[in-house]
Amino acid sequence: MGNTVKVRVPGTTANCGPGFDVMGIACNLYNELELKLLPEHVLNIEIHGDGANKIALDERNLVWKTIERLLKAVGDTKYHGAEIIMHNNVPLSRGLGSSSAAIVAGLYAANCFLGEPLSKQGIFELADEIEGHPDNVAPALFGGITVSLHNQQGLKHISFPSKLPLKLVVAIPDFQLSTKKARSVLKANVPFADAIFNVSHTAMLVAALAQGDAEALKGVFDDKLVQPYRAELIPGMYDVFEAANKLGALGTTISGAGPTLIAYTLENEDAIGEAMVKAFAKHDISSRYLALDIDTKGVIAL
Amino acid sequence: MGNTVKVRVPGTTANCGPGFDVMGIACNLYNELELKLLPEHVLNIEIHGDGANKIALDERNLVWKTIERLLKAVGDTKYHGAEIIMHNNVPLSRGLGSSSAAIVAGLYAANCFLGEPLSKQGIFELADEIEGHPDNVAPALFGGITVSLHNQQGLKHISFPSKLPLKLVVAIPDFQLSTKKARSVLKANVPFADAIFNVSHTAMLVAALAQGDAEALKGVFDDKLVQPYRAELIPGMYDVFEAANKLGALGTTISGAGPTLIAYTLENEDAIGEAMVKAFAKHDISSRYLALDIDTKGVIAL
Repeated sequence: MGNTVKVRVPGTTANCGPGFDVMGIACNLYNELELKLLPEHVLNIEIHGDGANKIALDERNLVWKTIERLLKAVGDTKYHGAEIIMHNNVPLSRGLGSSSAAIVAGLYAANCFLGEPLSKQGIFELADEIEGHPDNVAPALFGGITVSLHNQQGLKHISFPSKLPLKLVVAIPDFQLSTKKARSVLKANVPFADAIFNVSHTAMLVAALAQGDAEALKGVFDDKLVQPYRAELIPGMYDVFEAANKLGALGTTISGAGPTLIAYTLENEDAIGEAMVKAFAKHDISSRYLALDIDTKGVIAL
Repeated sequence: MGNTVKVRVPGTTANCGPGFDVMGIACNLYNELELKLLPEHVLNIEIHGDGANKIALDERNLVWKTIERLLKAVGDTKYHGAEIIMHNNVPLSRGLGSSSAAIVAGLYAANCFLGEPLSKQGIFELADEIEGHPDNVAPALFGGITVSLHNQQGLKHISFPSKLPLKLVVAIPDFQLSTKKARSVLKANVPFADAIFNVSHTAMLVAALAQGDAEALKGVFDDKLVQPYRAELIPGMYDVFEAANKLGALGTTISGAGPTLIAYTLENEDAIGEAMVKAFAKHDISSRYLALDIDTKGVIAL
């Protein structure tokens, strides 16, 4: 205890089309966090990379607020401040799990620093409480493809590796979309048939990834409960999807609450990424793409 | 060609709680069918076992009607009649896939008799067309745990074995419930939150069975889209569920459209079955139970 702890946390994509609030995948796009807790009421926060000019450097900082929650949860009275250095690659508020990455990194690093008073399940529960839903924190913490939910047994997750060498091509537009706004367009009631559509597609998505059945994956990223209502918030969404599908993508979805769009593919990832960027450009949206792999580890200490 | 063909087909349970029209499981409760196609317009149908006094022995017989569909589909003009002997163990119209068993047995046997003009996918598509939904025909044909759906790519399925030694304890009440009636009580619109509940539970159900995670299976057989509306059609449903859950069942659901109720368990199957029968009896419903295993083969030629 007492030495600087350094952790690495992956960005994540949630929903994966039909699996709203349930499905998540960790990708090889990482933030790093160096943390030293201090007995004094002092905060030294240094941010490099994505969001460096936008993230609060005082007590409103999400990593610090998260660490305060953990200190309270474990009953620590020794530490009141911290030295925090962040190296961010996960873009802010774009649907790639930046807030979950900050929360999981903060909790995991502080827990390491304190000699692991919390289990990984304990960290998961606290992270879910802070974030409000588990679909991004589960893959950030456990890696791989995750299914997570609350039921009468508590907060549960399963993490499993993909049996297919799936590439995640993300087209990240140059504007932000808050999860709050993206949630505000959803409907309170939906057609029964649309509900069953998402049930069936999510079931097939999980089965196909777990069994490694590429043929079965085609078409199962479709969604009728969420994305049709969010299309208005992401200009050009359907054109970007079409551009990727034309080049052989297995499926296309909004990444989390957006505005990042994602194509799942086994081939042609760069051509798909370029076509997605070009399709966004036709709607006067500038964007960049990344061709990512699935991260299988989740957060780790470096 | 020309000799009698004998096939064995499993009974099946569909929906599995949250996976309405999507999930299916084959169980080791079998019907056997002996078939000889005849050039003459003659039908000799003999039925032993379940439904022997109720199943039509003329051209209205479901197995025969199914065979006629296949003869038409493959363009056969040689055969106009059949000798059919059925040995039935799957109870009729109780939610254990009796009609799918008849359809799959008829198609599979006739296809064998004719020298396999149809692929297994071809049989699947024809069976789904006749039955109207694929959730029972998929496990009857392919065995194991199945996920099946229609999408823009056509009719798809995945079949996978359970990684857990799951026992299916079915309590079969002494009354019939037609799928048509069971469907008539469903709602055209449902709350978004209930839809997501079923999406999340189905995703976890598939992941837990595919990964062999017994802990994650607890509580994920719950359903908010279908069973609450069907409870009125099955007196004592919640009491039967509670009786099984008290004895350690992982979950309890209606089997298909009911009225059979099913408990999923890793232990204690006979005590659970007896308790379910007793709970039904308190509501003046006589019933019997069977403790079944998952069938992994689906329909086979004997």
